[in-house]
Amino acid sequence: MPRTGRRPGGPHTRAAILAAARTEFARGGFDGATVRGIAGRAGVDPALVHHFFGTKQGLFVAAMEFPFDVGSVLPRLLASGVDEVGERLVRLLLSMWEADRSPFVALIRGAVTHEESAALLREFVSRELVGRVAAAVRGSSPELRATLVGSQLIGLAMARYVIGIEPLASADVDTVVAAVAPTVQRYLTGPLD
Amino acid sequence: MPRTGRRPGGPHTRAAILAAARTEFARGGFDGATVRGIAGRAGVDPALVHHFFGTKQGLFVAAMEFPFDVGSVLPRLLASGVDEVGERLVRLLLSMWEADRSPFVALIRGAVTHEESAALLREFVSRELVGRVAAAVRGSSPELRATLVGSQLIGLAMARYVIGIEPLASADVDTVVAAVAPTVQRYLTGPLD
Repeated sequence: MPRTGRRPGGPHTRAAILAAARTEFARGGFDGATVRGIAGRAGVDPALVHHFFGTKQGLFVAAMEFPFDVGSVLPRLLASGVDEVGERLVRLLLSMWEADRSPFVALIRGAVTHEESAALLREFVSRELVGRVAAAVRGSSPELRATLVGSQLIGLAMARYVIGIEPLASADVDTVVAAVAPTVQRYLTGPLD
Repeated sequence: MPRTGRRPGGPHTRAAILAAARTEFARGGFDGATVRGIAGRAGVDPALVHHFFGTKQGLFVAAMEFPFDVGSVLPRLLASGVDEVGERLVRLLLSMWEADRSPFVALIRGAVTHEESAALLREFVSRELVGRVAAAVRGSSPELRATLVGSQLIGLAMARYVIGIEPLASADVDTVVAAVAPTVQRYLTGPLD
């Protein structure tokens, strides 16, 4: 009997599973989401999820990646110099979050409810973000600078999207970029004391 | 038969219940914590918890209050003018968090896992913090300024205490105050565009 509605394997299936995983992790956190539920949302057999991602933890790591390839976007963002990188970085992240906040919400929800997820996030941030940003930074303490940037960007997304504190939650993107970009810029290239 | 170990009612009992509630909410989130568990940790009868705080939600609201009286500390913080309030505010919060981060962790954990808790937090921030800070702020958009301050302070605590991103997590307090205070100061009194 044909399993109507089940999609065949391939890159589209992988992307559909990741999208379903982001939704399910955002709704239920790491424990609440199940491979069966994610497979159901993606319209595939659970075995296919295990085939692509191994365990639920493997799926979580894949799903919590930013919806762009950090390895290619960040160097491009930093390539034209660090003089206006504050504005470019804040605008890029806001445009991503305005389009779809669920990957970020899943990431944060996992990190605050499970030490295992927090450890995964720490590893991801240290390996993928802090190192790359620090390499491009001028001035002392490049790693501290990179994590200060992270603190403002995490807090911006928390206040605007997760908690939803007004009027920041409804402020237009240009207003937020104008206010926050100088902070990010100072953390990267300005005096820290 | 005397119930050994049960404390009598009174202000000490109320404080003991609140301390137990912060621990239990921090460990299990809003749903995971129970009135029975909190009462057990505080060494009191669950009926006493209901007597003091009504429902679990009422207890949560009481427990998520900052461990100082916002109503008296914030005006004092703002009374000596806003010129150095950035540094005073960052130093005060860091000293609180260094002593005990669990109230903040409980607050954030509740807000990201339950819309009901996020609504409670929004209400608390709007009523107790944004209004008071905005009233003391110079310049345009005082409410937006207050929420921008909130975004940096939430993100700082998330990065340093909840996720624990190095080297920010281990940086000494003076280093963090020197780096973050100018951000808070600019959001309160500087140009936003």
